[in-house]
Amino acid sequence: MHPLLEKKGFILDVDGVIGRGDKPIPQAVEAVNKLISMGKRVVFVSNNSTRSRRIYMQRFKEFGVDISEEQMFLTTYVTATYIRQNYGKSKVFTTGEAGLAEELKLAGHEIVDYRDADILVVGSNRQISFEILTKALRMCLDRDKIYIATNPDKIFPSEDGPVPGTGMIIGALYWMTDRMPDCICGKPERVIMQQALEYLQLKAEEVVVVGDQIDVDVLAGKNIGATTLLVLSGVTTRQNLNRMVEKFNTKPDYILNDFSELFD
Amino acid sequence: MHPLLEKKGFILDVDGVIGRGDKPIPQAVEAVNKLISMGKRVVFVSNNSTRSRRIYMQRFKEFGVDISEEQMFLTTYVTATYIRQNYGKSKVFTTGEAGLAEELKLAGHEIVDYRDADILVVGSNRQISFEILTKALRMCLDRDKIYIATNPDKIFPSEDGPVPGTGMIIGALYWMTDRMPDCICGKPERVIMQQALEYLQLKAEEVVVVGDQIDVDVLAGKNIGATTLLVLSGVTTRQNLNRMVEKFNTKPDYILNDFSELFD
Repeated sequence: MHPLLEKKGFILDVDGVIGRGDKPIPQAVEAVNKLISMGKRVVFVSNNSTRSRRIYMQRFKEFGVDISEEQMFLTTYVTATYIRQNYGKSKVFTTGEAGLAEELKLAGHEIVDYRDADILVVGSNRQISFEILTKALRMCLDRDKIYIATNPDKIFPSEDGPVPGTGMIIGALYWMTDRMPDCICGKPERVIMQQALEYLQLKAEEVVVVGDQIDVDVLAGKNIGATTLLVLSGVTTRQNLNRMVEKFNTKPDYILNDFSELFD
Repeated sequence: MHPLLEKKGFILDVDGVIGRGDKPIPQAVEAVNKLISMGKRVVFVSNNSTRSRRIYMQRFKEFGVDISEEQMFLTTYVTATYIRQNYGKSKVFTTGEAGLAEELKLAGHEIVDYRDADILVVGSNRQISFEILTKALRMCLDRDKIYIATNPDKIFPSEDGPVPGTGMIIGALYWMTDRMPDCICGKPERVIMQQALEYLQLKAEEVVVVGDQIDVDVLAGKNIGATTLLVLSGVTTRQNLNRMVEKFNTKPDYILNDFSELFD
């Protein structure tokens, strides 16, 4: 039996672990369902900042993973929850898409124009515009406004090539105003991982953090003191592994070709 | 007589010097026309990266300044000329607006999609989109592509408040790719100033560089070794002067409330 199967909980990345884009990795999905049937506590953490959990559930159903919305920590939800816990129900302006707005409203926040907002929430937006960027800029210039970002990813490796991540907006605002977010909620930062641990009701030592990116998933696991498992079914491959380990100066505790090898 | 009137040439900024937005500063316009009638050589240099010279001429006519297109160095024109002089007629992809595209075409370049382009030209665009930013990102990631920016301005002080300048795109690309432009053409960089000097057929010691921004105009003048005149009719005012001098650690050679004081 693989030593990681002694752990009580698993915090799993989605893309590159149980699927690639909208296509599942069937043997990895099977492994997740096996873990669940063994009584392991499982949650998913994703830096996706454009979709609500309601929308993401659809993908999990199509993949054939048997989990509930509560086991799904997307940065849309995590950011909305973080703001609620730290600032109460708030007036927010967001650069983000409908999925982020949906989670913000579900958490009790009000989406308002930038002049009336107390909190700027930066998330990726495929409809980003000069107007949205102008409003975000003006909020950043006002040091009384709180500034929260969903996730730090600079580039997202989409199926047809690299596209800007939420980090593009963070970088643009930093360049213009010398200001970084007061909090970034997504991996490798701690907020998303802490919410996952809290749901699992486990300590970091009792869980494995699983993902395909060293600088995102493995680092997120190390940042909370969890055991880390890198799978080579996504961004990191057998070919670029050594280069990635060197580049990010971070070594995962375990490496598998894909998640199903946990049961080999 | 003001000692600056002994100089042969004047390189003037536009906004904050002879006008504010589309409104002229009449006494400054009068002073410029007086200089011209005295036989002084006069050119205008502007970091505007969205308008062609053809379009800008309209503003000068409305202001009542009697100059020709050849005396107008906008970064749209300057960038197109720089590329022509250094790389010949080129295939370019630009993030910019119609005014920049117009000058690029007038200089003999072909505007093509990013995959076919050899040169990325970054200029501001009030219709900036995720798609344009994605294309610029992909060109930046390809180190074989040349990357030129019109001007470095991070924030533009528009009449209804701060809006992003071309620098926003430069900053976003730098954040995502660790890459800065191979050349930035606008002030305070030297390309625009050198083109102005060449047109004037004067040496830097023979000209005065006039502007309202210490970090843009005064620095541009100092970068070529010209005499610098700061006017307090735009971004820099009597109130913020000391703070600005300290912030940018640069002192203009002369300071006037507005350009017409040259004749007081």
